[in-house]
Amino acid sequence: MEKLQSLPGFRDFYPDTCAVRNYVFARWRDVARRYGFTEYEIPVLEPTDLYRRKSGDEIVKQLFHFTDGGDRGVAMRPETTPSLARMATARQRDYRKPMKWFQIGACFRYEKPQKGRGREFYQFNCDILGEQNSAADADLIALAIDVMLTLGFRTGHFRVRLSDRNAWSGFLVAQNVNEECTPAFLQIIDKLEREKEELTSAKLAELGTSLEAVRTFIATKGAGYEPLEALVASLSARGLSDYIEIDLSIVRGLAYYTGTVFEVFDCGKGMRAVAGGGRYDNLCQLIGGVDMAAVGFAMGDMVITDLIKETPHANDRLLHWLAAQKRADVFVVITSEARRSEALAVVQSLRDAGLAVEFSYTADKVGKQFQTAEILGASHAVIIGDEFPQVKLKDLAARTEREMQASSLAKVILQQAVE
Amino acid sequence: MEKLQSLPGFRDFYPDTCAVRNYVFARWRDVARRYGFTEYEIPVLEPTDLYRRKSGDEIVKQLFHFTDGGDRGVAMRPETTPSLARMATARQRDYRKPMKWFQIGACFRYEKPQKGRGREFYQFNCDILGEQNSAADADLIALAIDVMLTLGFRTGHFRVRLSDRNAWSGFLVAQNVNEECTPAFLQIIDKLEREKEELTSAKLAELGTSLEAVRTFIATKGAGYEPLEALVASLSARGLSDYIEIDLSIVRGLAYYTGTVFEVFDCGKGMRAVAGGGRYDNLCQLIGGVDMAAVGFAMGDMVITDLIKETPHANDRLLHWLAAQKRADVFVVITSEARRSEALAVVQSLRDAGLAVEFSYTADKVGKQFQTAEILGASHAVIIGDEFPQVKLKDLAARTEREMQASSLAKVILQQAVE
Repeated sequence: MEKLQSLPGFRDFYPDTCAVRNYVFARWRDVARRYGFTEYEIPVLEPTDLYRRKSGDEIVKQLFHFTDGGDRGVAMRPETTPSLARMATARQRDYRKPMKWFQIGACFRYEKPQKGRGREFYQFNCDILGEQNSAADADLIALAIDVMLTLGFRTGHFRVRLSDRNAWSGFLVAQNVNEECTPAFLQIIDKLEREKEELTSAKLAELGTSLEAVRTFIATKGAGYEPLEALVASLSARGLSDYIEIDLSIVRGLAYYTGTVFEVFDCGKGMRAVAGGGRYDNLCQLIGGVDMAAVGFAMGDMVITDLIKETPHANDRLLHWLAAQKRADVFVVITSEARRSEALAVVQSLRDAGLAVEFSYTADKVGKQFQTAEILGASHAVIIGDEFPQVKLKDLAARTEREMQASSLAKVILQQAVE
Repeated sequence: MEKLQSLPGFRDFYPDTCAVRNYVFARWRDVARRYGFTEYEIPVLEPTDLYRRKSGDEIVKQLFHFTDGGDRGVAMRPETTPSLARMATARQRDYRKPMKWFQIGACFRYEKPQKGRGREFYQFNCDILGEQNSAADADLIALAIDVMLTLGFRTGHFRVRLSDRNAWSGFLVAQNVNEECTPAFLQIIDKLEREKEELTSAKLAELGTSLEAVRTFIATKGAGYEPLEALVASLSARGLSDYIEIDLSIVRGLAYYTGTVFEVFDCGKGMRAVAGGGRYDNLCQLIGGVDMAAVGFAMGDMVITDLIKETPHANDRLLHWLAAQKRADVFVVITSEARRSEALAVVQSLRDAGLAVEFSYTADKVGKQFQTAEILGASHAVIIGDEFPQVKLKDLAARTEREMQASSLAKVILQQAVE
């Protein structure tokens, strides 16, 4: 019979890789908590129109989309922002502003799978809704930096590039370029590093400006554009100036950003974008008919996980965490099958006390049971035999052993864990 | 513009409902850990053939299925067992047996949405692979019971009905019924409580047995069928006899079970099935071509969450947990905008220390800031003004206040949390 495999771009998480995933999730959750964000979740499947309304018809070919049994056009979520805008606007009266919400879950894009990009990937989404003040932008960027620091990255490993689309609006006014040309202009800026110089020059000339003027504006970091300076000041006040730089060449392709935009970059030769976001003050109006300011960012799991493994300081933290996730606290060794019932009662009482407890389902030799205890990383073995309720407690690391009543086990083991 | 809504049978998890979901997830994870289970995850989307191979063509109409851009027949997972069998058999040599694996995630079924049944629901899956001994069945059932106890349910709230398909095989042999009739017979047993008596009698007569014989066999609890007695003994040794009963009318509709089957029932008038599972020793061969014994169970989130809310003792535990998930540890009150930079540095240092810290993004009046601190459930307020680095720390519950250097804040607050 033909072997069945998972689909291209989809991942099986065996216990070892699932533990790495859980580490990243736990760090994401911890930072979100420290910054006062609260968790929400959205459906995995949504009406395709939700994504069409935000991003136009173009997006549909990048979606896993189909018609369901009720003749509805549906799509597996490629991102969370449109659903968030729908939810937040539907019940915005029930929540005090700013709403600081985060989400962690799988997203889906029908794209060519490649390193760092799958068809199913996890994403961490943080958004602040209902706050126009750029103090929210700064807090969100601080959070993004803190995710990197918490994961063990340091100066030289990553950098946050800050930009503001409105700085370019000012530039265009000064250059007498028609306001309607802004989207076309931002597209040129977005491709600045990839496009041939002559082509860029020609396109800019057509709009009534020049590559030289653009480069000067970027080199002078927006010539002191005040909101960007304020953002830098707010992050510097937090002691985060080492991790940021103004880089106006960052505009982010997505059409919906309205102000601050930023990207977290890996400083290695890969120069991979690890996370990105910005202000999108028009989306809630577009999706839910409610005027509500918004700023958010997203980080995927694939690039960051590669980066953790490539960066010794970050990888050490991961390994330390994994080692601490020991599977077993206690292995109950049954030396006499006649005592299996009593052993099961001990297993149950230790599990009731909160301990992770393993034992052999079959009548194994004592030596083999100790071997299994070691493989499972148990810190203690409880040895149950004919002297029951007198039992032996063995500290497997210290290689010490003592006798006690079975009823004292939980207390003694938990006490040792605290010491 | 038309308002966009989520699809029928799909749920938006606002922060309050997401917290309840997280409570259930946390309890599931805790019990799995205590029983020595390790987490894995499978793709949300799989080849439709995977489900067809396990359950036949019938299953397809209950799936969200479609053809993807690469012309593959794909389906959103309705359950995890076939994927688990694929993964486990593909790499079974890499893992010691028994493999005790669990998973928590969303599943999808295209069914009529109703109370307790959605088109998207979460499921907790626990499986023990590579162990034939019924000690594994007992440990898994103990785990299922422990989930209920950990959630705060007690005797009288729920009951586990134990059965074994092989007990019926013995019955059929004794009644001289042809072995080939077993599936048809089990279908009749499955419908015993819903079908009209005459119809059941007629069907049973056709197979060469009688309703009377069936009822007697059920009433005598399988007439001492040894494997079932052993299961009861193993659970009783753990002190769990109050929660179990032998009930051979439970056979579970799914064709793939091969031995033990069990269901956890709500004892209220709803008599809802909360969880169910059993032994399925043939599936790994069918899916992955590897002979591997298996026993597992699944619990959905929807019925159990309803049940928690309806059961005072369980609901109290939920409320206690929710109250402990306070959003803010500290609210930093900024009494003078001239000190905002210094306040941001304090915010950052407290967050670095692991505390959840909030502050106003805008220049609010001091009274309003204290109000916000209260709404956010902060335990402490730090008051920063012109005396900086001298600051005030206010314990908002005890309503006490003391002055100190800003650099001492984290240590003092963390110390108080321990006391």
